[in-house]
Amino acid sequence: MDAVDHISFESTDTAGKSITCKAAVARGPGQPLVIEDVQVAPPQKMEVRLKILFTSICHTDLSAWKGENEAQRAYPRILGHEAAGIVESVGEGVEDIKKGDRVIPIFHGECGNCTCCRSRKTNLCQKFGVNPLKSVMVNDGKTRFSTKDGSPIFHFLNTSTFSEYTVVDSACVVKIDPEAPLEKMSLLSCGVSTGVGAAWNVANVQPGSSVAIFGLGAVGLAVAEGARVRGASKIIGVDINPTKFAKGKVVGITEFINPEELEVPVHEKIGAITEGGVDYSFECAGNLEVLREAFLSTHMGWGLTVLLGIHPSPMLLPLHPMELFDGRQIVGSIFGGFRGKTQLPDLAEQCMCGTLNLDEFITHQLPFDKINEALQLLVDGKSLRCLLHF
Amino acid sequence: MDAVDHISFESTDTAGKSITCKAAVARGPGQPLVIEDVQVAPPQKMEVRLKILFTSICHTDLSAWKGENEAQRAYPRILGHEAAGIVESVGEGVEDIKKGDRVIPIFHGECGNCTCCRSRKTNLCQKFGVNPLKSVMVNDGKTRFSTKDGSPIFHFLNTSTFSEYTVVDSACVVKIDPEAPLEKMSLLSCGVSTGVGAAWNVANVQPGSSVAIFGLGAVGLAVAEGARVRGASKIIGVDINPTKFAKGKVVGITEFINPEELEVPVHEKIGAITEGGVDYSFECAGNLEVLREAFLSTHMGWGLTVLLGIHPSPMLLPLHPMELFDGRQIVGSIFGGFRGKTQLPDLAEQCMCGTLNLDEFITHQLPFDKINEALQLLVDGKSLRCLLHF
Ligand SMILES: NC(=O)c1ccc[n+]([C@@H]2O[C@H](COP(=O)([O-])OP(=O)(O)OC[C@H]3O[C@@H](n4cnc5c(N)ncnc54)[C@H](O)[C@@H]3O)[C@@H](O)[C@H]2O)c1
Ligand SMILES: NC(=O)c1ccc[n+]([C@@H]2O[C@H](COP(=O)([O-])OP(=O)(O)OC[C@H]3O[C@@H](n4cnc5c(N)ncnc54)[C@H](O)[C@@H]3O)[C@@H](O)[C@H]2O)c1
Ligand SMILES: [Zn+2]
Ligand SMILES: [Zn+2]
Ligand SMILES: [Zn+2]
Ligand SMILES: [Zn+2]
Repeated sequence: MDAVDHISFESTDTAGKSITCKAAVARGPGQPLVIEDVQVAPPQKMEVRLKILFTSICHTDLSAWKGENEAQRAYPRILGHEAAGIVESVGEGVEDIKKGDRVIPIFHGECGNCTCCRSRKTNLCQKFGVNPLKSVMVNDGKTRFSTKDGSPIFHFLNTSTFSEYTVVDSACVVKIDPEAPLEKMSLLSCGVSTGVGAAWNVANVQPGSSVAIFGLGAVGLAVAEGARVRGASKIIGVDINPTKFAKGKVVGITEFINPEELEVPVHEKIGAITEGGVDYSFECAGNLEVLREAFLSTHMGWGLTVLLGIHPSPMLLPLHPMELFDGRQIVGSIFGGFRGKTQLPDLAEQCMCGTLNLDEFITHQLPFDKINEALQLLVDGKSLRCLLHF
Repeated sequence: MDAVDHISFESTDTAGKSITCKAAVARGPGQPLVIEDVQVAPPQKMEVRLKILFTSICHTDLSAWKGENEAQRAYPRILGHEAAGIVESVGEGVEDIKKGDRVIPIFHGECGNCTCCRSRKTNLCQKFGVNPLKSVMVNDGKTRFSTKDGSPIFHFLNTSTFSEYTVVDSACVVKIDPEAPLEKMSLLSCGVSTGVGAAWNVANVQPGSSVAIFGLGAVGLAVAEGARVRGASKIIGVDINPTKFAKGKVVGITEFINPEELEVPVHEKIGAITEGGVDYSFECAGNLEVLREAFLSTHMGWGLTVLLGIHPSPMLLPLHPMELFDGRQIVGSIFGGFRGKTQLPDLAEQCMCGTLNLDEFITHQLPFDKINEALQLLVDGKSLRCLLHF
């Protein structure tokens, strides 16, 4: 029995029609989001219109909101990519999803047909993979959102979930068990999947191994949760915000390092407490200096660093070519290596049966109108995820 | 029956004594090597004194000779690390090697006891792995070479093979089948093992896969040979020196690209002829721009670039952090990932039984005195390996 049981669609006749609803619109870098009525056009071919029930804010939304990467700016825009909801209607040709299905949108889609999807060697869909420069739908290069007076509002990360209704490509919608608790499923839409998947799919953390996690937001703590489930024996958490350590303990972090309290570089400290370095390190802070420390914190010969944080281009990787000769590897990971449509339903099951514990990740809940408050909580390092309710 | 059969030691009483012999001494960056008499002290604890019968010149010798990396300069010095020879005497405690054994020295040793050696996950020995800054022996921090008047001559890459006799740590000597043809075995000392191993151990090239090799010296062509043996279906060779293409064809390269004849970047051309990029690329030129092209030439999602070339520090890797999110990986490889003492005897067998074909790699042979001529052949891009005979 979850909070969504009381929700039903008042009428069936929204299908095929434009819907007017509430959304939080970004109108310029760093400006408060404006809650306003927007029009949401019906889904086109292979598109799906969702009623969003819960959405949360990921650091990637924060970076986009601040406009950190100029090339990616587009206004007005509806941000947001972590959410859960119900299908309101589907466009022509959509067969795997139907009205009423409980779903999570994914910013990193899976078309199933491109060379990458067919290879099964990667989760990088060539058609609907995340593209931060994209702000319109693939079908017609236009937006499905518009203001009351009809001018376009741009999309974000294939999803735009800061709106009561949104239109996404069917490659970016995952149908989950109707019994799954939708509030928590919102976390699988990005942050938790990204962290857990980085530990499971990308690093493939082994029992008894040692792990260092740099940045203990929802993503970093999800890495810890993933590593804990895999039986890592040492999980070191690194953050400049020590208020993160309490949560960290709950998800299984065994040791904490606050770089600001050290006299030596973090990697030296980690080298000292792990006989030469950890087996795996994860950069979840989005900071190049942190990335370098994470890289050097692994053991020579076999250490693997997984890069999850988003770093503004066009900076170079802070590594010397010859440093690769020490046998440390680095690999980037989007969405934790999960092929969303194929693998997320199972991940949802693992949360339902308790293998994976999502309880710690939602630290705050607010009505959708208070989205700017929720943004500020993340900016201030006070929340992991604040769940917004429509 | 090989050229070494006639060689025997005139007397047994060199053991424990200093030997005076011919060596090629580097006295300054880019200066012609000086053939002169040097004194070679007896091997100390866990050291081995070798009589070098054949030595060849690798590009890494060339770079050291030019003094490309200032921090690594040390004069006078005996360069050289590709060779084959016979054990003249062994120091205290050496049990796996004895006088008369046919051996190849390895610049990247294997102690068998450090954390890395014991892990078997890497070939990076923490005690005797290659260290370009090292110029003395571990035992006493001194040299075993000296001039006639007793002043020290520095060691190079654990081996210093441009000398009729040399002293190396026993971790840097591999005993091979006494039937193995020693001239060719010299190639296993570095170049061929490095290339073949990069294809076998590091990339783990699979049948039917596609490969691009940047730089068709001995190392790059050995990658081709390794990829051919593994059944790669497409092996693309890239070099600005088209005279390398004839040899390339013999070792199995299927297509050639001369970057100087292209209107587009090499990676675009490779993307076009491989439906999106190769599975594996190898940088064997020691050039950062080439490294970037090699990286971008692989297929998004699963492409792996193996870095073999030596690049002067402190340049940064020419990659943006976000480019790692395209699922391309890069990994550095020393000595092709081979754990020398453990694995080279088997590699020698594979050459003897013809699995691996070494015939193409020795393009020139000269007496040792002509070492400067041999250097020039490599500088001019005319040789792969010139075998020098003592
Ligand atoms: N690769 C992906 O698919 C993917 C998906 C989601 C998020 N992300 C990225 O992952 C990163 C983390 O996201 P999040 O939502 O967990 O963010 P968050 O803001 O909740 O957490 C970031 C954490 O890093 C810490 N931090 C900041 N600077 C630090 C430093 N110098 N040293 C140590 N710790 C430091 C902060 O205190 C905070 O606890 C962001 O860069 C985000 O854009 C990537
Ligand atoms: N990692 C290791 O363990 C290891 C071992 C041996 C050698 N090396 C290094 O590998 C590299 C190759 O060694 P080698 O002995 O085969 O050298 P080499 O000089 O015989 O061959 C280098 C080749 O690269 C080509 N080249 C140069 N610039 C190029 C460019 N811009 N584009 C394409 N091709 C270019 C040259 O024409 C030449 O054919 C060197 O950097 C060497 O130091 C590394
Ligand atoms: Zn996110
Ligand atoms: Zn796809
Ligand atoms: Zn070499
Ligand atoms: Zn060792």
